[in-house]
Amino acid sequence: MPSENTTEQQLLSKDPPDIESLLLLNPRTKPFANSRPSVQTLQEKKHWKRNDEHSCATGCTKDLSRNFLDVKHTTLSERGALREAARCLKCADAPCQKSCPTSIDIKSFITSISNKNYYGAAKAILSDNPLGLTCGMVCPTSDLCVGGCNLHASEEGAINIGGLQQFAVDIFKSMHIPAIRDPSSEGVPLNEKYSSKIALIGCGPASISCATFLGRLGYSDLTIFEKQDFLGGLSSSEIPQYRLPFDTVNFEIELMKDLGVKIIPNKPLTTENDGLTIKNLLNEHGFKAVFLGIGLPNPNIDPIFKDLTKAEGFYTSKNFLPLIAKSSKAGMCACKSALPVMSGNVIVLGAGDTAMDCATSAIRCGATKVFVCFRKGFNQMRAVPEEVDVAMEERCEFLPFCSPKQVFVKNGKITSMEFVKTEQTESGDWIEDEDQIIRLKCNYVISAFGSTLNEHPVVQALAPIQLDKYNYPVVDLTTMTTSEKGVFCGGDIAKVASTTVECVNDGKTAAWHIHRYIQGVETIPLEPQLPKFYTPIDKVDVSVEICGIKFPNPFGLASAPPVTSGPMIRRSFESGWGFVVTKTYCLDKDIITNVSPRIVRGTTSGFNYGPGQGSFLNIELISEKNTEYWLRCITELKRDFPDRIVIASIMCGYNEADWTELAKVTESSGADALELNLSCPHGMGEKGMGLACGQRADLVLNICGADGVTATNTVSGLMGIRHDGTAWPNVGKSKKTTYGGVSGNAIRPIALKAVSAIARALPGFPILATGGIDSADSGMQFLYAGASALQVCSAVQNQDFTLIDDYVTGLQALLYLKSLGLEGWDGQSPPTPKHQKGKTILVKDLIGAKLPVFGEYRKQRNEITQKYFKEADILDEQFKPEPVRPARRPQAPIPRVADVRGVALDRITEYKHLDPREPAVAIIDDDLCVNCGKCYMTCNDSGYQAITFDPVTHIPYITEDCTGCTLCVSVCPIIDCITMVPRTTQYSIKRGLTKQIMDENASALGIVQ
Amino acid sequence: MPSENTTEQQLLSKDPPDIESLLLLNPRTKPFANSRPSVQTLQEKKHWKRNDEHSCATGCTKDLSRNFLDVKHTTLSERGALREAARCLKCADAPCQKSCPTSIDIKSFITSISNKNYYGAAKAILSDNPLGLTCGMVCPTSDLCVGGCNLHASEEGAINIGGLQQFAVDIFKSMHIPAIRDPSSEGVPLNEKYSSKIALIGCGPASISCATFLGRLGYSDLTIFEKQDFLGGLSSSEIPQYRLPFDTVNFEIELMKDLGVKIIPNKPLTTENDGLTIKNLLNEHGFKAVFLGIGLPNPNIDPIFKDLTKAEGFYTSKNFLPLIAKSSKAGMCACKSALPVMSGNVIVLGAGDTAMDCATSAIRCGATKVFVCFRKGFNQMRAVPEEVDVAMEERCEFLPFCSPKQVFVKNGKITSMEFVKTEQTESGDWIEDEDQIIRLKCNYVISAFGSTLNEHPVVQALAPIQLDKYNYPVVDLTTMTTSEKGVFCGGDIAKVASTTVECVNDGKTAAWHIHRYIQGVETIPLEPQLPKFYTPIDKVDVSVEICGIKFPNPFGLASAPPVTSGPMIRRSFESGWGFVVTKTYCLDKDIITNVSPRIVRGTTSGFNYGPGQGSFLNIELISEKNTEYWLRCITELKRDFPDRIVIASIMCGYNEADWTELAKVTESSGADALELNLSCPHGMGEKGMGLACGQRADLVLNICGADGVTATNTVSGLMGIRHDGTAWPNVGKSKKTTYGGVSGNAIRPIALKAVSAIARALPGFPILATGGIDSADSGMQFLYAGASALQVCSAVQNQDFTLIDDYVTGLQALLYLKSLGLEGWDGQSPPTPKHQKGKTILVKDLIGAKLPVFGEYRKQRNEITQKYFKEADILDEQFKPEPVRPARRPQAPIPRVADVRGVALDRITEYKHLDPREPAVAIIDDDLCVNCGKCYMTCNDSGYQAITFDPVTHIPYITEDCTGCTLCVSVCPIIDCITMVPRTTQYSIKRGLTKQIMDENASALGIVQ
Repeated sequence: MPSENTTEQQLLSKDPPDIESLLLLNPRTKPFANSRPSVQTLQEKKHWKRNDEHSCATGCTKDLSRNFLDVKHTTLSERGALREAARCLKCADAPCQKSCPTSIDIKSFITSISNKNYYGAAKAILSDNPLGLTCGMVCPTSDLCVGGCNLHASEEGAINIGGLQQFAVDIFKSMHIPAIRDPSSEGVPLNEKYSSKIALIGCGPASISCATFLGRLGYSDLTIFEKQDFLGGLSSSEIPQYRLPFDTVNFEIELMKDLGVKIIPNKPLTTENDGLTIKNLLNEHGFKAVFLGIGLPNPNIDPIFKDLTKAEGFYTSKNFLPLIAKSSKAGMCACKSALPVMSGNVIVLGAGDTAMDCATSAIRCGATKVFVCFRKGFNQMRAVPEEVDVAMEERCEFLPFCSPKQVFVKNGKITSMEFVKTEQTESGDWIEDEDQIIRLKCNYVISAFGSTLNEHPVVQALAPIQLDKYNYPVVDLTTMTTSEKGVFCGGDIAKVASTTVECVNDGKTAAWHIHRYIQGVETIPLEPQLPKFYTPIDKVDVSVEICGIKFPNPFGLASAPPVTSGPMIRRSFESGWGFVVTKTYCLDKDIITNVSPRIVRGTTSGFNYGPGQGSFLNIELISEKNTEYWLRCITELKRDFPDRIVIASIMCGYNEADWTELAKVTESSGADALELNLSCPHGMGEKGMGLACGQRADLVLNICGADGVTATNTVSGLMGIRHDGTAWPNVGKSKKTTYGGVSGNAIRPIALKAVSAIARALPGFPILATGGIDSADSGMQFLYAGASALQVCSAVQNQDFTLIDDYVTGLQALLYLKSLGLEGWDGQSPPTPKHQKGKTILVKDLIGAKLPVFGEYRKQRNEITQKYFKEADILDEQFKPEPVRPARRPQAPIPRVADVRGVALDRITEYKHLDPREPAVAIIDDDLCVNCGKCYMTCNDSGYQAITFDPVTHIPYITEDCTGCTLCVSVCPIIDCITMVPRTTQYSIKRGLTKQIMDENASALGIVQ
Repeated sequence: MPSENTTEQQLLSKDPPDIESLLLLNPRTKPFANSRPSVQTLQEKKHWKRNDEHSCATGCTKDLSRNFLDVKHTTLSERGALREAARCLKCADAPCQKSCPTSIDIKSFITSISNKNYYGAAKAILSDNPLGLTCGMVCPTSDLCVGGCNLHASEEGAINIGGLQQFAVDIFKSMHIPAIRDPSSEGVPLNEKYSSKIALIGCGPASISCATFLGRLGYSDLTIFEKQDFLGGLSSSEIPQYRLPFDTVNFEIELMKDLGVKIIPNKPLTTENDGLTIKNLLNEHGFKAVFLGIGLPNPNIDPIFKDLTKAEGFYTSKNFLPLIAKSSKAGMCACKSALPVMSGNVIVLGAGDTAMDCATSAIRCGATKVFVCFRKGFNQMRAVPEEVDVAMEERCEFLPFCSPKQVFVKNGKITSMEFVKTEQTESGDWIEDEDQIIRLKCNYVISAFGSTLNEHPVVQALAPIQLDKYNYPVVDLTTMTTSEKGVFCGGDIAKVASTTVECVNDGKTAAWHIHRYIQGVETIPLEPQLPKFYTPIDKVDVSVEICGIKFPNPFGLASAPPVTSGPMIRRSFESGWGFVVTKTYCLDKDIITNVSPRIVRGTTSGFNYGPGQGSFLNIELISEKNTEYWLRCITELKRDFPDRIVIASIMCGYNEADWTELAKVTESSGADALELNLSCPHGMGEKGMGLACGQRADLVLNICGADGVTATNTVSGLMGIRHDGTAWPNVGKSKKTTYGGVSGNAIRPIALKAVSAIARALPGFPILATGGIDSADSGMQFLYAGASALQVCSAVQNQDFTLIDDYVTGLQALLYLKSLGLEGWDGQSPPTPKHQKGKTILVKDLIGAKLPVFGEYRKQRNEITQKYFKEADILDEQFKPEPVRPARRPQAPIPRVADVRGVALDRITEYKHLDPREPAVAIIDDDLCVNCGKCYMTCNDSGYQAITFDPVTHIPYITEDCTGCTLCVSVCPIIDCITMVPRTTQYSIKRGLTKQIMDENASALGIVQ
């Protein structure tokens, strides 16, 4: 502790008073327990509360009047998506995919998100589900993919698959890139059957999906007939904007239209008014095949509601939700209708998802209270928990065991409703007790008891299709065929689908069988081979030429465990890898035997158990297999995969004859090139091989005259020591270890330096980069740094060979996007919007600066938002979706891999060329800030005490003392919340001592000057 | 693609049929979209489902008969805890702490968990809350700490603070280490007032807390009087075992007893039967002070239940829950009572947490259906969401708006109940409509309408304390004093606390004011200075001596941004750091100016935004401050902190005069030692300083004759390149960059190697280690590797100076635990129990091997578990808590830091000393497995195809082909699920080619042998 006899103000090593006051909220070690009476905390905690109070006395319903902003819990920002994607285990034979009706390859698309390859993710999603964005938003995932997630077995729980799906496709949407047919089918002639006229009835999810797949297959005369003046079916008319915005539906329809599908609106299936019928489509109109995807247009209504009207306050979900949609979805149709105005109590009848949508929509119409009343108990609700939660959060009340009996109307307005109580008997039957009457005052009743098809003219128009006793078509559910040849059926009306995603899948299944029907079942196999989703990105050429050898793509497997054997290389080629460097082999006389254990988990990214860890350490040696084995394998592989490159990695001691022999036999095996292993950092060095040669320039020169180089190998290290004093790995009873090679992301900065340094020193010299390449994004960085091709090992160890698909599409996308010249994008990452939890927020001008998102401030934010919506025209131009067509076209030639090689080198220089006279300072975006104060603390304890932190609002503020060190940016948890900008004011360095301070300080210390 | 004309079986580079079949579930790139009819997925997904179906037709209530296993969602395994703790931002002025009634330093304890310092975490928790384990389990955190968590502003949501608290204290509990008084108070004489008799009435949370703090203050005659024959108050009697097991309560009471507190059971406060009264305590019994913590013992009962009895099926929460506790909490009391057997319908009345406990307890008594009926709506429920969720999950039904009116009894048994419907008027009042009668058949009714105090003899025994109109004591809520001098009051009866944690805090607040009352308010300040929690661990000496200099602890700040200025060093010393190495300074003629930006986020641990990232890269130079500044600061600091060590880091060019000058003035400033900076990897080298000197052995030798070394500096690298071709950092308009220094965990393997290599080469040579030291745990690894002291930078940049507190307690704990010789522990990590989500599972023998936790298997597991509990005696010995006292005592001398130094070195050796004849193989623990198949995939694509993966159960199995490579262990997401064991069978290496294969292959390839 400081002694008492000094004038503390004069101490150089003590913060001056202004900084001491700035430091007041900085953590400090306390000698005692903290203490504060309970009654005080009871008050104070309210100020900091970020979640809702769990109960409320009165006026509970949230004020969300006319507010149709996103309510989905699953919506993700880029930061949130990257974090969530990194959590995914990318399981084998993943149950998520098995539980997805459209069988989306979820593991693959989440891998792509992890790797910032958002196009790759969207491609994987849209390949299996053309309505992938819609489904990411509205799927009841807890009952589908998420229900099967293996992470349910962990405390952190299942992956937010829907949110990730939404995120990836949403970013692709903002690229404005059109769909095309499989580029490999270009120029392949199609028979005339592909020009057959095909009709699809109803422009909802089933038909959009079916038409999309038919379009991908090559069918050119596809027409969707829609009875409404708007498109999208139930997605548009019944799912509210705050769950599924109209621009999502619009985007997916545009992707379908990219393939040439025509749409005719206002054309219903009906026997009335010159409408369409199955008969006239097939006969008069000349359609070869018809897909029926009309959904279930009519409400199930209890007879007690007979004759009740909207004017009296009675709605069904079938007339209420479309009204809400038309008056809240800007751009959905030409009509501009007003949102119904409700007040008082609204009763919603039903316990399905639609009932929840009606309840939350009623709130937005101004309802004072919403009661959701349903016949059975909570345990029998049809709605999925994620939907019920939203209604609960918005403070709807729930009344179970209520069977509707009577509605009371007075002066033409509903005044109340009567229910009888229901009860489940021990045998499970439900009975109603007419003696127990429950009454609820109400002004509106919305019946949401499901849908049916009971319009006579529509049913008649289905003839001659065989119908069941409920007037639904009889459908073969594995092929979606009806009794009538050429007529197929899917979606709600086919009665398997109860969700959008199942409707989509019905359309997909039907597409294949329509194809078989048209082309003939004898020529088309039963097992579907539906084309994937493609765009011009997939046409980008990523081949590279190195030393006259052409590589189909720059990604190969490094000489490492993934190429332990010939069959593994074969499988990697089958997966799409462009090249391999074989596991290093030697002459049989030098053959080695491995110890075990030998490849261990990295500790460099914290206690990260499982895949995605940042490093490995290994003490594995070169191949245990004999020379002849490798020579034969190389010969076989080159014969079977002539377009792929096999580089043979070989090693000998410092002996010319050995190198000559091994090089010669390898060359005659057909290997495209040799890699001389002069860098193995463990084991081999002791034998005078590997590193023992590579560390001496003279030996290297004598051994080889290289046409290129692989940089780098692993970095020698010791990964960790346990508390019994043994390292891991340790071998055998004696538990001994040796230094091993660190691989993976941990060494990427070292590898990037090595590659760029070589490239700067030897311009154009071929460099095969390796060291932490785990994505197209990081691979691209090596290309910028001067690499010619890219080798991968640790990323495959963390995952599997199929990664190559992500890497190639990722690289294609990065190159293609360069040609579009998108403003503010970094690779596939768009500029960060002003958001909280990924949801765009009303900007500062409206909200008022410096208003945090907790306690009283949170309420103020909500009030400002609500005031805005109450006055806004929500169908106004500003709310209309951004047009996604015409699609963007390249503004410049699409660069080749060779064009981006080394582009970063010019700006890598010596320190002395960096200019300290161009200082930067940090700025903080209050709208993105989460008030954690990390910037404040790091600036205090590792920086320059140049950030204040408001004790009440917890808003940080950069002061004039900022020296631009950038630590605050580096520890901020929110992307782009803090950024560095050029300093505009005068900057003077605090050198520590002015003459005056020196004198004062000297006298305080008793120093004679 | 392979050509068709070869005999594929003979290909060396193709997997043989057995491996091909093993590979069937391995991911592969598919050319087409996936396709499967919706109807098929509808069936298949059920097999993979890991969560509950959200609705059920009949028999909904879960079978949990007699099953009192943990139900808390918050419980965490070590893996889960480490992951969750890493997520925490460790905010400034953290709102979580401000929202905790006991003001626990949450940020600090989560930091300690992150750093595997579980003792440090428990110490922080128990310092502020002596019932920290109980509160971790039962706190309604969404309304307290978690409600204020800044991560509510992120998609991943608030931290599971309760679960982390439970985890840390639970591990400390398993250490069996006793509490002691503050070691610094040892030998300090206490006045006679510390021997005053103090009585505490009621052995519940408030009294236990109060007595603990009084014990810590030094009071030696503390007696708790408890009316029951069991201890713990409401924690024991009313909170069910599955939320708060008895051993938790028992543990906390033992910690209190460690401080000498006496407990007398069966001694109530009452005017009857020779009971205690305030008067006789103060007068006849001679107590100087009394703390009243009797809770509210009596139920609130509606008059309609008058005369109803248990025999008829009527309970109140006040007689039901204690009955459940006594018959399910083994070890709670001597009595062995049977669990009530219920069947049919149970009605629980009330909407508070207690009602939820009654409902879920009734299920465990065998109830067929449980209805929770309450007067108001869901929006007015008092129970916190986390409690309601559990009751919902267990399939209780909820009936809002029901006011109880009448209970019907037939033949001495309850048969049904009648309610009237309630309704809230527009003004917010609640009215009942007598016309709307709701009836429910039922066999049992449990009233849970809250508690009160209405026993006349108890109220009388409170005299002469002033009571309010409800007969509760009038209490000053900031001091917990009553109207009677010397009588204090806390907990439920003081009417502020509505939770256990608030009761604890009342006791804590009262303790200070009892202390002031006894010692005299003039001598004791108003602001509390309550002692923290201590154990013998806190007495462990961690000082080290290096070159004759004594360091109070081995942790210091490296020459880096955290020591940019003198005041920062001062603050670091105030926080407890043992030493600093100053930022390197030079002669004024060499003074430098930094560029900005210069310290950037690491990319080596993925897209990890925010603190906890694995690395930084900097292009910062040495200090910008002048020589004199540093000399003065050193002088001041050494004067004010004579026990701390200041090592001055200095740098000059290769010039003897400069080095001599700078070394001399620095020496006279009072610095304890000099560090000659010969390693700065950027900028300075170009000036002929730093690395330019350090990379040449001859220059190093000429400059210094070192008594020790710092190893290592940062590692030169390039962190990343953006898609515009610029690196980050880049400076000014030209956006140029240079290679910088990588610091943090990413370089720890390199630093561990460097330190151990130096230590092996120069035994005993002092080494100041740096490079990724971020905890006591990683620091200890450097000590094992031969370090003498430990320098930190990146970890402080990620956080703040208070880390030192965690490092010191962590190191003390690691050393102390060594003396206990705990079986199977690794540092502070106990052996991993068989668990799922941190909850111990019934072991394989009972469950049956190979039974996964999804779909039908999950049901089977539940059935087996239920069968077991139906037959088990749940009060049996095996269910009793593990005794935590007598406490463990050191079995061997507690090692000093010097004793552990270099212990790992013997086992670090050359590769040739590792024995390949002692191979290891992997084994998988099915009970821990989450069926992700990561082991299977990495073994296929990076290993030896030696793991099968069952297509139906998704259980992996290691085959005889295992070579012990350890990749499976390295990618497995579950700690200890896969382990390496010595191979017991013959191991033969696959060299690739036997003679026979060679011949066959040769002829297939057309090669003439």
